Amino acid sequence: MPVYKAPTRDTRFIINELLKLESYGNLSGFENASADMVDAVIEEGGKFCSEVLAPLNLSGDQQGCTRHPDGTVTTPDGFKAAHAQFREAGWGTLSAPLEFGGQGMPHVMGFAMEEFVSGANQAWGMYPGLTNGAVSSILVKGSPEQQAKFLPKMISNEWLGTMNLTEPHCGTDLGLIRTRAVPNADGSYAITGTKIFISAGDHDFTDNIIHLVLAKTPDAPDSTKGISLFIVPKVMVNDDGSLGARNAVSCGSLEHKMGIHGNATCVMNYDGATGYLVGEENKGLAAMFIMMNAARLGVGVQGLSQAEAAYQNAVKYAQERRQGRALTGAAEPAEKADTLFVHPDVRRMLMDAKAYTEGMRALCLWGALQVDLVHKAASEEERQTADDLISLLTPVIKGYGTDKGFETAVSMQQVFGGHGYIEEWGMSQFVRDARITQIYEGANGVQAMDLVGRKLAMNGGRAVQTLFSLVDEECAAAKAKPELAIIADKVEKANGELKAATMWFMQNGMADPNNVGAGAHHYMHIMGVVGLGLMWLRMGETALETLAGGTGDPAFYQAKLTTARYFAERFTPDAGALRRKIESGAEAIMALPVEAFATA
Amino acid sequence: MPVYKAPTRDTRFIINELLKLESYGNLSGFENASADMVDAVIEEGGKFCSEVLAPLNLSGDQQGCTRHPDGTVTTPDGFKAAHAQFREAGWGTLSAPLEFGGQGMPHVMGFAMEEFVSGANQAWGMYPGLTNGAVSSILVKGSPEQQAKFLPKMISNEWLGTMNLTEPHCGTDLGLIRTRAVPNADGSYAITGTKIFISAGDHDFTDNIIHLVLAKTPDAPDSTKGISLFIVPKVMVNDDGSLGARNAVSCGSLEHKMGIHGNATCVMNYDGATGYLVGEENKGLAAMFIMMNAARLGVGVQGLSQAEAAYQNAVKYAQERRQGRALTGAAEPAEKADTLFVHPDVRRMLMDAKAYTEGMRALCLWGALQVDLVHKAASEEERQTADDLISLLTPVIKGYGTDKGFETAVSMQQVFGGHGYIEEWGMSQFVRDARITQIYEGANGVQAMDLVGRKLAMNGGRAVQTLFSLVDEECAAAKAKPELAIIADKVEKANGELKAATMWFMQNGMADPNNVGAGAHHYMHIMGVVGLGLMWLRMGETALETLAGGTGDPAFYQAKLTTARYFAERFTPDAGALRRKIESGAEAIMALPVEAFATA
Repeated sequence: MPVYKAPTRDTRFIINELLKLESYGNLSGFENASADMVDAVIEEGGKFCSEVLAPLNLSGDQQGCTRHPDGTVTTPDGFKAAHAQFREAGWGTLSAPLEFGGQGMPHVMGFAMEEFVSGANQAWGMYPGLTNGAVSSILVKGSPEQQAKFLPKMISNEWLGTMNLTEPHCGTDLGLIRTRAVPNADGSYAITGTKIFISAGDHDFTDNIIHLVLAKTPDAPDSTKGISLFIVPKVMVNDDGSLGARNAVSCGSLEHKMGIHGNATCVMNYDGATGYLVGEENKGLAAMFIMMNAARLGVGVQGLSQAEAAYQNAVKYAQERRQGRALTGAAEPAEKADTLFVHPDVRRMLMDAKAYTEGMRALCLWGALQVDLVHKAASEEERQTADDLISLLTPVIKGYGTDKGFETAVSMQQVFGGHGYIEEWGMSQFVRDARITQIYEGANGVQAMDLVGRKLAMNGGRAVQTLFSLVDEECAAAKAKPELAIIADKVEKANGELKAATMWFMQNGMADPNNVGAGAHHYMHIMGVVGLGLMWLRMGETALETLAGGTGDPAFYQAKLTTARYFAERFTPDAGALRRKIESGAEAIMALPVEAFATA
Repeated sequence: MPVYKAPTRDTRFIINELLKLESYGNLSGFENASADMVDAVIEEGGKFCSEVLAPLNLSGDQQGCTRHPDGTVTTPDGFKAAHAQFREAGWGTLSAPLEFGGQGMPHVMGFAMEEFVSGANQAWGMYPGLTNGAVSSILVKGSPEQQAKFLPKMISNEWLGTMNLTEPHCGTDLGLIRTRAVPNADGSYAITGTKIFISAGDHDFTDNIIHLVLAKTPDAPDSTKGISLFIVPKVMVNDDGSLGARNAVSCGSLEHKMGIHGNATCVMNYDGATGYLVGEENKGLAAMFIMMNAARLGVGVQGLSQAEAAYQNAVKYAQERRQGRALTGAAEPAEKADTLFVHPDVRRMLMDAKAYTEGMRALCLWGALQVDLVHKAASEEERQTADDLISLLTPVIKGYGTDKGFETAVSMQQVFGGHGYIEEWGMSQFVRDARITQIYEGANGVQAMDLVGRKLAMNGGRAVQTLFSLVDEECAAAKAKPELAIIADKVEKANGELKAATMWFMQNGMADPNNVGAGAHHYMHIMGVVGLGLMWLRMGETALETLAGGTGDPAFYQAKLTTARYFAERFTPDAGALRRKIESGAEAIMALPVEAFATA
């Protein structure tokens, strides 16, 4: 049986010591974000996830969801009861707005909790997780009446929400959707069509489910400019908030998936279901992107979460499993064999995981802070910088984060040898669950194109220039300290590769846009390395300060310095290789006719 | 439903044009290896795999194996009947020795067939595949009586075989095994113990199964020097070859695995079962390594096979699925969207797969030719060179080959977006099946240690020097040709990184052997890049010659040149990054105490 303990110690370090959340006390919602408050919330939230959600992870995978003939869906044993506890304790409302019943804390706090929930049980976490996406759209684009009617109950998790985009013939290219919305006399719309891959599309957690659905009105343009967004409740809601009749929407079937078996991935049939337009007609894609951006950061965190869970189990196994002897001679001669921990190749995998998970956690929580600052920073300049940075790095956190998250889960499975392949150990599940994070909310190739095609160009490249400067400043400061100089040197070099790749795109993208497309994925990975490098430099700085101050457990901070060095030595060299690949351009990639790909 | 067509065109190119099998006509077994004969066998064998085995792949995964209360195992529907056809057609006997009923063809032919079998149905292919391993041990170490009694029926596939190494507490470290072999009065042994992860441990293909089992005799040294190898038939074999009573060995349970569901992975219980010593007492490990080396090459081919199968499906999907528009403007304006093939990031994944599968196929078949030459080359010098090269490259073909095979299967799944995650499409199965190849027959970290710890040092480094020279010569020759010069330049650079890494090991391994262990995995990958680079240079040369000669379909050979260039541009840069990682040494990897890996 796999184990999971929410990584609260590391999270508290990041929030209190690295991000210094307390120092933002002048911002609304941050007033009470003292280190003591942070510690209490993080520890209690972590405890809930470790004790209530984690024990349901393996069994949920094995049991899966069941669809009944009437189209209703039952979730695995224990899932519904866990949600009742979650709702009662308010774990889903940490960062939700006060005016709709949330606790109004910084996003950083809600984001930290998201990692714990997903690490404990990704499939379970998707039920409340998708609700957050749905909430964010209604918050920004919904009418006051819609907000009053739906938000309090969704935020309290009395009802949950979904996002309905994909159809059988289109996922990435939403201009192709066929679901129709025909106006009714009362101002509502009749929604008809089929949506697929709808996570949490039906379940038994709550009495009602609020679907957010993309559809086209009769005279809409036949492109992404003709998409509108609708609220479609599973059960109609009366004006007094009580539940009415069943709406004409139901789960037609459940998909058989590689992983996240505990989440109901539904084919949803809309058969003239009553829907309410959110925002303006034909402006649905913009509204959907509000959801998507929040969701993409959340998916990055899921990638991290599975790597963390897999890592914890691999560390435990490497301590317990005895096999072979240390290369330098028996470490424990009295035992028949040494533990896996003596083998440098096993340690290489564990250090890779440590450098990724701790660096990625810092990047995600730093990203959540930017989201807070976009809305709350004191000056326009600070808000703009935060907006630039999080817009730029959202596809990187999603794309690079989940690529590395999956890769980490795979290598942690590898630590187990043959036992890693047996389902009972749980390592296969981490790999299978992590795999979806590279695919949904925009496949990682789509993230890469978003990065190079939209984010780089925004405001004349202002965002990426801001990132370059941030990293350069950090490197310059770190180079003055002997313990960090070698790390700064390598991160600076990676930043140089990023600059060179950016310049190459500028020089070669105009002549042939495929030159940019052909390098997009590699570019996203270089930026991921630089982003993690920035975090590792800052963590190194923080660790040095604390060690110098003589406070805290020196072993913890010493480990940060060692891991920062490992990161610099073993992650940054990829940046140069990736840059060289980018510079080879699109020619060989685009040269062959389709027939040349036949092998038989 | 996934598709699979054996890649016969590419295989014939490699055997006839690249390896020029015909030119070895002076060697025994090669007399009839004319291009016509090769073409006929490859096409017929491929047809069998595409038409008989491939249609059972997805259904076999979904149905899995069933163990009955009496310990017998039923394989998925159609598996047994397909084996009867396979046996009747003699597809398992291509390269088996004539004297025991085989067809005596070069290993190259048997190896090509192994790829097709595994690509069509990896789980099915493991039943006859493991028999080959068992056969090779008996061939080399068995007594004439054992050979006469078991080999003809195993080679004809009337009986199948297994390999029993792993126990619950030991896989890699076989010195720890506890299975006991106590001498009986008649010269046989009573075998008692439990083996786990036994592929094809029981099934309904054949009336008998010949288990090869590692066990310890009562006074054996308590280390790998005390291991003996035994033949333990499932059903006793009378002197006249007829079947006798059931032996005391049975399948105790089936494992629930991530993949290869169609293969019965058994816990095998030996309860005083009658066994026959193979070779000398306490020399079992050496006998087992004969099996293992053959099996490791076979696992490398499995990694290739899943990548190829996944690639074929991704190519098909990319041609059929329409989503978005080409970056350079609509490629097919009359359609609502262009096919995935227009997107450079999709093509990047497909070209990666093409460069890996074609390069790896060449390396595997070239490796099989070395196995032939070890036994049959005319001069002692040629035999020695072949032995050096295949000994050196066996862990690379297994380790690098399956790492890249899995990675390729994953990226081909990615081409499908959300549909790749749904089991019905079959892409998940390719990923799940490919995953085991990185683990079994020695996890890839073990391969890396075999490479740097044993193979590099053999005969004062003679083997690796031979490889360096081969590549250098190829590069020098290719540089003279304008079409290949840029490719040769990059492969030469990768070879330079391999030399530098080798030198670094020599200079730093003595001071701390962990410096070698910490770089072993990366080193294996550099050698994989160089090995594939050698093949791509040679394929480029062959393509150029054919194009110059005006024979053959120019599109096929032009594609080889383009793919060679892609390989050089997009694979070789990794060598430099890996070398830099190696040169960072073991310090940061070994520095942290075990407690520092706790995150909670």
